[in-house]
Amino acid sequence: MAMVCLSDFEAHAKKYLPKIAWDYFAAGADDCTTRDENILAYKRIRFRTRVLRDVSAVDIRTKILGTKISFPVGIAPTGFHQLAWPDGEKSTARAARAMGTCYIASTYSTCTLEEISAAAPGGLRWFQLYIHRNRAASQQLVQRAEALGFQGLVLTADLPYTGKRRDDVRNGFCLPSHMKVKNLEGAFEVCKMSPLDPSVTWNDIYWLQSLTRLPIIIKGILTREDAELAVRHGVQGIIVSNHGGRQLDEGPATIDALVEVVEAVRGRVEVYVDGGIRKGSDVLKALALGAKCVFIGRPALWGLAYKGEEGLQDVLRILQDEFRLSMALAGCASVSEIGQHLVQFSKL
Amino acid sequence: MAMVCLSDFEAHAKKYLPKIAWDYFAAGADDCTTRDENILAYKRIRFRTRVLRDVSAVDIRTKILGTKISFPVGIAPTGFHQLAWPDGEKSTARAARAMGTCYIASTYSTCTLEEISAAAPGGLRWFQLYIHRNRAASQQLVQRAEALGFQGLVLTADLPYTGKRRDDVRNGFCLPSHMKVKNLEGAFEVCKMSPLDPSVTWNDIYWLQSLTRLPIIIKGILTREDAELAVRHGVQGIIVSNHGGRQLDEGPATIDALVEVVEAVRGRVEVYVDGGIRKGSDVLKALALGAKCVFIGRPALWGLAYKGEEGLQDVLRILQDEFRLSMALAGCASVSEIGQHLVQFSKL
Amino acid sequence: MAMVCLSDFEAHAKKYLPKIAWDYFAAGADDCTTRDENILAYKRIRFRTRVLRDVSAVDIRTKILGTKISFPVGIAPTGFHQLAWPDGEKSTARAARAMGTCYIASTYSTCTLEEISAAAPGGLRWFQLYIHRNRAASQQLVQRAEALGFQGLVLTADLPYTGKRRDDVRNGFCLPSHMKVKNLEGAFEVCKMSPLDPSVTWNDIYWLQSLTRLPIIIKGILTREDAELAVRHGVQGIIVSNHGGRQLDEGPATIDALVEVVEAVRGRVEVYVDGGIRKGSDVLKALALGAKCVFIGRPALWGLAYKGEEGLQDVLRILQDEFRLSMALAGCASVSEIGQHLVQFSKL
Amino acid sequence: MAMVCLSDFEAHAKKYLPKIAWDYFAAGADDCTTRDENILAYKRIRFRTRVLRDVSAVDIRTKILGTKISFPVGIAPTGFHQLAWPDGEKSTARAARAMGTCYIASTYSTCTLEEISAAAPGGLRWFQLYIHRNRAASQQLVQRAEALGFQGLVLTADLPYTGKRRDDVRNGFCLPSHMKVKNLEGAFEVCKMSPLDPSVTWNDIYWLQSLTRLPIIIKGILTREDAELAVRHGVQGIIVSNHGGRQLDEGPATIDALVEVVEAVRGRVEVYVDGGIRKGSDVLKALALGAKCVFIGRPALWGLAYKGEEGLQDVLRILQDEFRLSMALAGCASVSEIGQHLVQFSKL
Repeated sequence: MAMVCLSDFEAHAKKYLPKIAWDYFAAGADDCTTRDENILAYKRIRFRTRVLRDVSAVDIRTKILGTKISFPVGIAPTGFHQLAWPDGEKSTARAARAMGTCYIASTYSTCTLEEISAAAPGGLRWFQLYIHRNRAASQQLVQRAEALGFQGLVLTADLPYTGKRRDDVRNGFCLPSHMKVKNLEGAFEVCKMSPLDPSVTWNDIYWLQSLTRLPIIIKGILTREDAELAVRHGVQGIIVSNHGGRQLDEGPATIDALVEVVEAVRGRVEVYVDGGIRKGSDVLKALALGAKCVFIGRPALWGLAYKGEEGLQDVLRILQDEFRLSMALAGCASVSEIGQHLVQFSKL
Repeated sequence: MAMVCLSDFEAHAKKYLPKIAWDYFAAGADDCTTRDENILAYKRIRFRTRVLRDVSAVDIRTKILGTKISFPVGIAPTGFHQLAWPDGEKSTARAARAMGTCYIASTYSTCTLEEISAAAPGGLRWFQLYIHRNRAASQQLVQRAEALGFQGLVLTADLPYTGKRRDDVRNGFCLPSHMKVKNLEGAFEVCKMSPLDPSVTWNDIYWLQSLTRLPIIIKGILTREDAELAVRHGVQGIIVSNHGGRQLDEGPATIDALVEVVEAVRGRVEVYVDGGIRKGSDVLKALALGAKCVFIGRPALWGLAYKGEEGLQDVLRILQDEFRLSMALAGCASVSEIGQHLVQFSKL
Repeated sequence: MAMVCLSDFEAHAKKYLPKIAWDYFAAGADDCTTRDENILAYKRIRFRTRVLRDVSAVDIRTKILGTKISFPVGIAPTGFHQLAWPDGEKSTARAARAMGTCYIASTYSTCTLEEISAAAPGGLRWFQLYIHRNRAASQQLVQRAEALGFQGLVLTADLPYTGKRRDDVRNGFCLPSHMKVKNLEGAFEVCKMSPLDPSVTWNDIYWLQSLTRLPIIIKGILTREDAELAVRHGVQGIIVSNHGGRQLDEGPATIDALVEVVEAVRGRVEVYVDGGIRKGSDVLKALALGAKCVFIGRPALWGLAYKGEEGLQDVLRILQDEFRLSMALAGCASVSEIGQHLVQFSKL
Repeated sequence: MAMVCLSDFEAHAKKYLPKIAWDYFAAGADDCTTRDENILAYKRIRFRTRVLRDVSAVDIRTKILGTKISFPVGIAPTGFHQLAWPDGEKSTARAARAMGTCYIASTYSTCTLEEISAAAPGGLRWFQLYIHRNRAASQQLVQRAEALGFQGLVLTADLPYTGKRRDDVRNGFCLPSHMKVKNLEGAFEVCKMSPLDPSVTWNDIYWLQSLTRLPIIIKGILTREDAELAVRHGVQGIIVSNHGGRQLDEGPATIDALVEVVEAVRGRVEVYVDGGIRKGSDVLKALALGAKCVFIGRPALWGLAYKGEEGLQDVLRILQDEFRLSMALAGCASVSEIGQHLVQFSKL
């Protein structure tokens, strides 16, 4: 079977992953409306294609928070990569480094931050944090990440409680006994009680800033009001995200929310987006609407499930090639030429 | 089979109820457009999710007409509960009391008001009235209800005649001979001729007010004009309802009509809504758009059909849990924080 | 099989009519978009239901061009009724008279005008005219109709040539040899060459007016411009029609065009509509938007195909009952209370 | 099987062409959204049908760049006609001449320009050019075309690189070894490396103008900005095209882009459109929105695949008949009467 586009990897993963793992990765909250809207919303955006521009050389490189990446697609934080591939997050780290992009490692990794760092020294990585009831555990995690050379701290803001994912309830989803949330080993049991602290507020940004010199990126912003609050609390970046549609169902598609957030932020901090990216042209649309970079969640897992590090590189390479081709066909020779003039919202 | 969401109860009821009973409960008028629109209209409303608010404690309690309920979901008046469960409305009354919410008992109950009261003493109950050609029969019902401690009188305004429900016509629907509309026993035969009075007008509100000191709630309002008339005639509450899409097909979805009614009422009386509630997040949307409480019809019957009182409690508990979770994920710690800022209508 | 709604008659006709006849009646032009839009457009109109109005007596009678009809649903002109029932248009005439409504007999009837008149003396009938290349033949038809007591002359304006109905082309549709277009017998052969005159213009209205004292109703108007021209040329009525979607595909649905035509006409002549009427509530919508009466095409043929005169009466009686019930449920006690305030266009 | 409409030819081609050839002709880029939108967008345009206009004679002739054609439908440039029919582009040229219309021969023909010219002397033909890295090869082609009597030079602007057509990648599409891109024989190998020059810009229009006196038509314009640039660079015509949805997916449908381009051009040059034409009424819509002529791509290939020259004539004749009938039914007796007043965009 030729792997030509990301859907091929999805079909492969659906076929070969254990049902409980596939269901966990695929799950959306409630009716999965937002999960699916994340994808559909891209289809309502139309390019305004320009022609006869010199696109003999197309430069797809960009920077995030001052660091160069080979193209504007990073790996979003997702948990439990060993469910997809035995080597888990170590493979993810290697693939991201090989492709020259950023990998946001999740608190809920099945490898430790130390293992991830050792697997791909020198790779660009950010660390994704959930603030726990046990603040000391969180503090320790942040400081371990900083010491290991992670270059950004991503605070997930949209998970005071876990969304209702019906299939996980039906399946009684739980990590297999031979896998562990290693970063938190001993601190709690994932299936018993959530360790996350639902009392976290904007003031906790100040606490985080007191713990680390890492830039703070806040993930899970969907409104102009929260975007403004994020800027005022001194974060360096915002990831427009609805957690892949896994939290509150029937919120906005992220590409729609991006427009509102970018407008509110007015360039004061960098804005990224995740959710629904399935083609290189989706990346182009997100950048045209103001994102500095996009992050992929499920497609990365499908790549891992296909062939580990190599499979994830395949996924990234397809996105890279499609993105470069889309830029050329839209008449853009470099990322700096991408702008809102390239797109319009379909009335349908 | 795990009962995870309300659709599971629906599937169970469809499988195990006699076809004639399922068809009767499921029926919508004509093409069932409005019945289905009631549900679809919720899907067109998008949350504006807010993050990083302290939701460690989420208070879902509220009041209707001054009486506390444990969460803003009551039981709408529907007829013939014995078609769903042998104990009929007695089970409904017990489940509602156990869950701390309000049950609106129908004129067309298969238990008497006395039996309902005795089954769950102290529960919060309103009585739903159809005005009959035989006004004395109606008067007697109102006064029995008041004497039995019912705390509200719900006048159904949208059934001068019964809507055309094609499956009921095909099935020749009629109550099985061992069930009775006990509240009206002897007064008429349900299948032969409708006892309802199609000449009822707004002036009959005054007549009702002369019979009882109970607050009057009018059910079946869909327009600003009728909402204004309801307020002027001194009712205490309005239930925005299209009778589950069983009366005039191709009227508005109730959640759409709610917006218009709430705007017209300007807080002068309480406004409730029924129709199409299938998830806790639907409740949150209805409250965001101005409803004080919602009422469920068919889902209550599915709960009864599953396991009587216990099954209905399961349904209510799922809605309660989902509502609490939706509030938390939307950033609301109490019902008073819910407002229109939480939602927007999708353009699609 | 119970015949509960018009779709039941459609299903019956599809099952029992010869394919070539079913295809001919069902045909729309090209992709059948407009044929289907005629029906779908009604679904986009929402009622603004009013309650608590005295609807103990609902008067559904009305008048067209000064003549009383028992309810505002007439029989649109369609050809070749013997394809549906052996007695053909004689049955149609009897059913229309029995139900107290108007029947517009087609030039392309398989019975003569004389046979139609004799079958149902005293019934209200209009005659539908195509202007032929042979003007003498047309003149003779008009004068026969007037002499026979037909009370209106309906000029079809939208058939300079026959639309492209793919199934008829595939089937090589032609009247069976034992049927004849009796009104024109000898004048031409239907399958060989169209006798219609594509050079007809508005000036020919004056010619018709010189031939007859019958009121002239023009059928096939879809725009404000043509509605204005019709009024200026002194017609008495307009039937908003797209020939059941059988002529130019992808024109407007008739119920949408009605709004534009009614606005242009400003009450100077009566406006009717045909196409897409399938339920009593569709009739209510058409009247709310300004139609004085609607006409049904295919549903009448389904009724004929079911049981001739009796079947057509069944169809009309269902529409009558549904229309009366819809009026009551919308809060209207007489046709004069129906107005634009009853409806709104859905945004979807 | 009767060939009644263009879909019949499509079904035939799908059934009888080798899969690899069908896939190549049918392919759209990525998700094929734009390919399909080209067709769907026509369905959202509604006619404003006018009646009672003299359409006894309907004149469908028009001119493009001053040359008469029998009706406003030409043959768009597509490659590799031998994949559809052994005689390839020679058959195409003969059919176009027989029907009195314009054929745009592709650089990627499987016959030489000389063979095409010899096959149908005197036919109206334009030559479609891709500018190659080897400019001398392009120059030679232009000058051969001019010498052979081609009357226009069509520069394709939207193919700096080939779009991603997934099925072609899966199939490993390549011309069968017995076919050749004869016009470029020896110059390059099609499957190995694209000879097209992605550095081409607007300035190259001046270079082309220096090579030839032929009028230059630019193909692939979708925005007002590029339309303005085309006019300023002195082209004689614009073909609004998205390459049949084979280049950048999720650009606009061509009929939607036509409106914008026509508005920008303000009559200074002729505007044509291709993509999505499947019925004579589509041609009428395109002309109503300002196109001077339309060009068909895939339908021409289906005609060839059916019966070569004869099959393509069948396709053109059907479009011609449908176009003439649509004009008559819309009330237009000549092409000059077609205007924007004939159409409106549906809100749905």
